[in-house]
This record gives sequence, structure tokens and C-alpha cells, in this order.
Amino acid sequence: MLELRLVQGSLLKKVLESIKDLVNDANFDCSSSGFSLQAMDSSHVALVALLLRSEGFEHYRCDRNMSMGMNLGNMSKMLRCAGNDDIITIKADDGSDTVTFMFESPTQDKISDFEMKLMDIDSEHLGIPEAEYQSIVTMPSSEFARICKDLSGIGDTVVISVTKEGVKFSTRGDIGTANIVCRQNTTVDKPEEATVINMSEPVSLTFALRYMNSFTKATTLSNTVTISLSSELPVVVEYKIAEMGYIRFYLAPKIEDDEDETKPEV
Amino acid sequence: MLELRLVQGSLLKKVLESIKDLVNDANFDCSSSGFSLQAMDSSHVALVALLLRSEGFEHYRCDRNMSMGMNLGNMSKMLRCAGNDDIITIKADDGSDTVTFMFESPTQDKISDFEMKLMDIDSEHLGIPEAEYQSIVTMPSSEFARICKDLSGIGDTVVISVTKEGVKFSTRGDIGTANIVCRQNTTVDKPEEATVINMSEPVSLTFALRYMNSFTKATTLSNTVTISLSSELPVVVEYKIAEMGYIRFYLAPKIEDDEDETKPEV
Amino acid sequence: MLELRLVQGSLLKKVLESIKDLVNDANFDCSSSGFSLQAMDSSHVALVALLLRSEGFEHYRCDRNMSMGMNLGNMSKMLRCAGNDDIITIKADDGSDTVTFMFESPTQDKISDFEMKLMDIDSEHLGIPEAEYQSIVTMPSSEFARICKDLSGIGDTVVISVTKEGVKFSTRGDIGTANIVCRQNTTVDKPEEATVINMSEPVSLTFALRYMNSFTKATTLSNTVTISLSSELPVVVEYKIAEMGYIRFYLAPKIEDDEDETKPEV
Repeated sequence: MLELRLVQGSLLKKVLESIKDLVNDANFDCSSSGFSLQAMDSSHVALVALLLRSEGFEHYRCDRNMSMGMNLGNMSKMLRCAGNDDIITIKADDGSDTVTFMFESPTQDKISDFEMKLMDIDSEHLGIPEAEYQSIVTMPSSEFARICKDLSGIGDTVVISVTKEGVKFSTRGDIGTANIVCRQNTTVDKPEEATVINMSEPVSLTFALRYMNSFTKATTLSNTVTISLSSELPVVVEYKIAEMGYIRFYLAPKIEDDEDETKPEV
Repeated sequence: MLELRLVQGSLLKKVLESIKDLVNDANFDCSSSGFSLQAMDSSHVALVALLLRSEGFEHYRCDRNMSMGMNLGNMSKMLRCAGNDDIITIKADDGSDTVTFMFESPTQDKISDFEMKLMDIDSEHLGIPEAEYQSIVTMPSSEFARICKDLSGIGDTVVISVTKEGVKFSTRGDIGTANIVCRQNTTVDKPEEATVINMSEPVSLTFALRYMNSFTKATTLSNTVTISLSSELPVVVEYKIAEMGYIRFYLAPKIEDDEDETKPEV
Repeated sequence: MLELRLVQGSLLKKVLESIKDLVNDANFDCSSSGFSLQAMDSSHVALVALLLRSEGFEHYRCDRNMSMGMNLGNMSKMLRCAGNDDIITIKADDGSDTVTFMFESPTQDKISDFEMKLMDIDSEHLGIPEAEYQSIVTMPSSEFARICKDLSGIGDTVVISVTKEGVKFSTRGDIGTANIVCRQNTTVDKPEEATVINMSEPVSLTFALRYMNSFTKATTLSNTVTISLSSELPVVVEYKIAEMGYIRFYLAPKIEDDEDETKPEV
């Protein structure tokens, strides 16, 4: 039996809004350590990894490991019916082919339960090796989202270049070129406004803006985003989920002079 | 001659926004007691009844009973030109084929008059008998609107079931099932947040969500909504209009196992 | 060489949003006195004239007169990437076929540069003669925008009639007629809320609402608008740009009983 009670239910709503356009169907994996998901996007170019640790739930009961296949569009339709202040409980019986989402309003005057059919989804769980990254940039998530959106108006790909001084985002399109430089800045009033560069080696990599823009739907989950870059490795775009875990997006860089989108090498 | 001066002109704007998508053309009936309308929706399934009592107008002159046929879409286009703080006056000469809407800004610096052609509309005025209802639910109108909208994402019909403890809204669709229970709750800080059940007999009836959703456009008119239910009778969804009257929507329940929309039995 | 530094960069963003839908391509003319533009709309009915005086820039260097042909849609795409608090610098080398827009965030932590190709655009600079107008109306720009939008829901043209008492905007369409009168009112709390009539002779002229509506996109630039009218002359709709200049729209009146749009007689 599975019963996971999340007081800050809006987190789960935001998680679904972040990934439902990227991934159609996916298995949620439930174990004693937490509630997680790993899935390729529908064109098999990007990878999403989600972790919500069991300690983050008010009540977490998972008698044995379960993998629940869900259509994320349908799941999102149901979660949208939860109020932003609602407590959300996910329930499933062993061997059942349905999952139940229960929403409790803060006053307990309104109790909803939504039951959804589970799906059988073939998926192999990819081992993502721990890697050392040449450059790690932490910056305000809203700034990163704004930059990806702005550059999408000009070109299709973004070159992300990191030096000790800062990180540069560049694009080129029919109407011209654009360069946006964010300087390292750790002396800000609020820590979440800092731009911090951790660099062992400068790096310059090219990515499809379409995917970067899709990843930034997770901006609502965290004030900051961490971008980890190494040549020959997929970039990791990570949004921390307050005291519970993270959502990470992986995307392979485009090979120079390669016009096609390449699959990630995770 | 007809001259009705409504200081809180925004009420009339809201009334039109509430019904213009449900009803295309309708007769507004004007008598010494008030300004009213009764009309079937264009597919002859739901009935709307509006009453604005003469006492609610600052000035109310209606020399003899008049029935004015109006296209509600065009009337709404004109009323949208009134500011939210404007005073609205409705004027018509006896025997004239036009009606004039005059809008005065609070400072009297801007005066608008809009003249609209009247139409000849065949309509029979249905006598709606006073009825005793088995269950009457009063609840926050925004909550009711939210529930109808949420359930529309899952299914096409809603089962409304009333017991002493509360009211349950249920639906079922391809992606799963949903149940939302609102408990009776009269000990709230603000009276308009209460959910009050007046029940002589439990009742459970099925309605088309499409119409329920349409009715909730009147949510802007009142903080609360009253839903009166009896088996064998159309449901009444009523929004009070502050100290002036009401707008009431009637919809026949769907017969069990009946997939088609049925006409109301008013 | 050209280098124009505008601290209130949002002004340039607003200017572009005001004119990009009216004019596709235009020459920006740069001289020691200022940065200006004069262009016909794409259907050659309306004329736009923009002036940003050199004194309004924090830094203004223009070694010799330049005319830079730009696609306003593309320019607007680039300027939209500037933050509302950003400082914008326009740069061009003599003889270069590109222009660079540089955006600096207030904290100087984010520096963007966007390079755009220039175009060769044939255009003749029209001398706009100084004229005496029979009636000049100054009114709140948001009120004028609201009136043009409201009347567009009813008809295609607006008759603007000025008397000493006020200005009347009228239209007529299939669904009826509309008249909106704004009275002269100079005794308001805030000067930008006044409606002021300067009249040597009453005037009544007809204009295409489509163009009037387009002009009101400049409403964000100024709290007030000035409408200068004379029979036989194009109307001038002017929005002042705080301490820097103006944007002026010219539109020829429609000849009575003339259903077609006529070219302005500037």
C-alpha cells in the first residue's frame, strides 16, 4: 500500500506543470526513500529526473517498491483541481490499476478525491553517472527563463560560454545576433539574486533553445537554477524543490556545425 | 415612456455578461414592478429568469407595460462601453422601435448615449410554479464555479448529491472519476463563506456540466449561490442581485442512463 | 560614429510598440539635434512623425547625419529583450550596415548587445507645414483610447465634433448608433485628467476608427493626448514624450459620403 501526504500540495501541481509538455507518459517510482521519476521527452532528446524525498512528506507509507505509469497530461488535469493551499495525498493499493489523489482544503471543509487509471509503460531506468563538471553556474531562475525566452525571438540555438567573469548566452538568426552577459555577482542583498560561477575550466556549448525554454517551466519551483556544463556531457539544468529534492533536465549539446538535434549521451 | 436610472450600472453590465452566451435574443419585460426577462437558451434546454425590482432603481418610470426584444450580444457590446462606475439609464418612447442606453461618468464629464434597434421576438411567458424543494444548498458562488470548472476537465455531467452532512459533486470520464465533497459549515468568519444545507429529503441528481458552467458566469453578481433540488423538478441555480432581485437558471436533471440532454420540465 | 545613450530605455521600447504595427520599415534619421523618424503606414494613409531631442539622452554623439533603415518588427523583437529599467545605447559606425542596441541592467550585472542588419529604404521626407488648427482638444490619453476602442465595437468611422462645451465622438453601425460627449473640464485634481478645448471655430470631421485605434498604442507614452483638427487638413494626434519630444500621427479626414479611405493631404 502507498500513502503519501504532502502538506504543500502546490509543489506537486508545479512539478506537473513543469514536465507535462515535455513528457507524455512516465513511470513514477515509489520506494521507502522517496517518490521519483525519470523519463525521456517524447522526441528522445532530453531527459527529466525528479526526486521528492520521503522526509519531505508529512506522512509517507510505501510498503513495497511500486512503479506507477501515468499519463502526465491527465494527471495534470486532476492536480489542477487542487487548490494552491490544499494538502494532497497520493494513494494506491498494491496491485491496483488505479491511483487516487485526495485534496483537502486548509479548513477541511472541502475534500476531493480523483481516481486515475494507471498505464503500463515500458521504460528502462538509465543510470546517470556522477560527473565532474567544468563549469557550474547558479543564477536567478527568472533571469535564466527571461534570457531563454528573449533569445528565442532571435535564433534557434544558444551558445552558453562560461569564464571566471561570467556567463554569456549568444544566438544568431535571420534578423541579427544577440549576446547577453551575466557577470558573477555574489554581493547582492538577497542570496537568491546572486550569480555564482564555479569553474575549473572555461566551456562553450551549444543547445537547442526550444528545450531550454521548456525546462524553464520549472521556474516556479525555485528562485535559483543551477546549470552544470562540461564538453562531451549533457548539460544539467537543476531546480531545487524546497527541502524535498529536485527536478533536473539533461540535454546533449549540439555538435558544432551540426544542424540536427542530437540525442543526449546520458 | 420608459426611463430607468440605475446608479450601480455595473450590475446591468454583469447581468448581460452572465446571460449573453446562453441566450441570443430575448424580450425584456418592463412593468411598474420591475424590469425582468425570461428566456430559454438557444437549444431550449435551460431557462433564465431575471428580475430587477423597480425599487432598486434611483428613478423608475414605466408608463405602461412594455416588452422590448433585444439581441443580447449587441446589447452587451453597448453596455461594455459603460464604465464600471457609470450610472446607466435605459430609455424608450412608447411605440418606438429603438431603445437608448445612456451612460454618465461619476464626474458627469463624460455622457454617452447608445441607441439600439429593437426586435420582434416570439416568446411565450412560462408560468414557473412555486415548488417545495427537497434540498436547498447555499454556498460561496466562487466555490461552486470552481467545482463546475474543475469537473468539466474530467467529465460531461455532474451528479449533485445532498445529505445532511454536505453536498457531493461527482463526475466520471475517460481519464477517471472525481468526487468533491463540501461539508456543511456555518461557523465561518464571513457569512458569505458558509455552506448551508436545508434538507427535507436527501437527493441525487445528474446535470450537464456545460450548462452549469454557463450559469456560473453570474458569479460576479453575488458572493453566494443557492441551488434548489428535487427529484422530478428542474434544479434552480440562483444568484441574488444586491437589494434588487435575482437571476435564476433552471435546468432539468438528466434521466438515469439517458445519454441525451433532456428538455426542462418547467 | 553614432552613440546615443538613453537612461530611460523603456521610452524607446514604448515608441516601437506604438508604431511597429502601423509601419513595417522606416528610416531613423540621426542628426546633432536629435533622433527622428517620419514614415507613412504600409497602406499610405497615415503618417507617423517621431522626435527624440538630443538633450533627452544622457550621452549623444552623432558625428554626421545618418539615415538608418530598419525593419520595425525586428527592431521591436530586439528591444523587447531590454528590461524596463535598462539603459539602452544605440551604436553605429559610419558606413556600417548594422546597428547595435546595448542594454545595461541598473546593477550593471547584465549587459546585452543585439546587432541588427540595416536596410536600404526609399523614402522622401515630407515637409509638414505648420498649420493653424480650428480646434485643439487635450484630454486624458486613456480616455481617448477607451472611446476609440468602444466605438470600434459599433462602427467603422468616428465623427469628431468640437464645440466650446466639449468634444463629441459619434459612430453608426449595423447594431445602432453611439455618441460620446466629453465636456471641457479644467477644474480637476490632477492636470493630466483635464479635458481642454482650444477653439477658434467649431469643426466636425470623420475618420477611420481602425487608424485611430492604432494611434492609441502610444497611450503608454503620455498621460494626455492632443488632437488638432481643421477642415481640409489631416488631424494630428500627438503624444508628448517626457522632456524629449513627441510622437505625432497624421490622418486625413474622410470626405463626406466617401466610403473609401483617402490618402492624407500632408
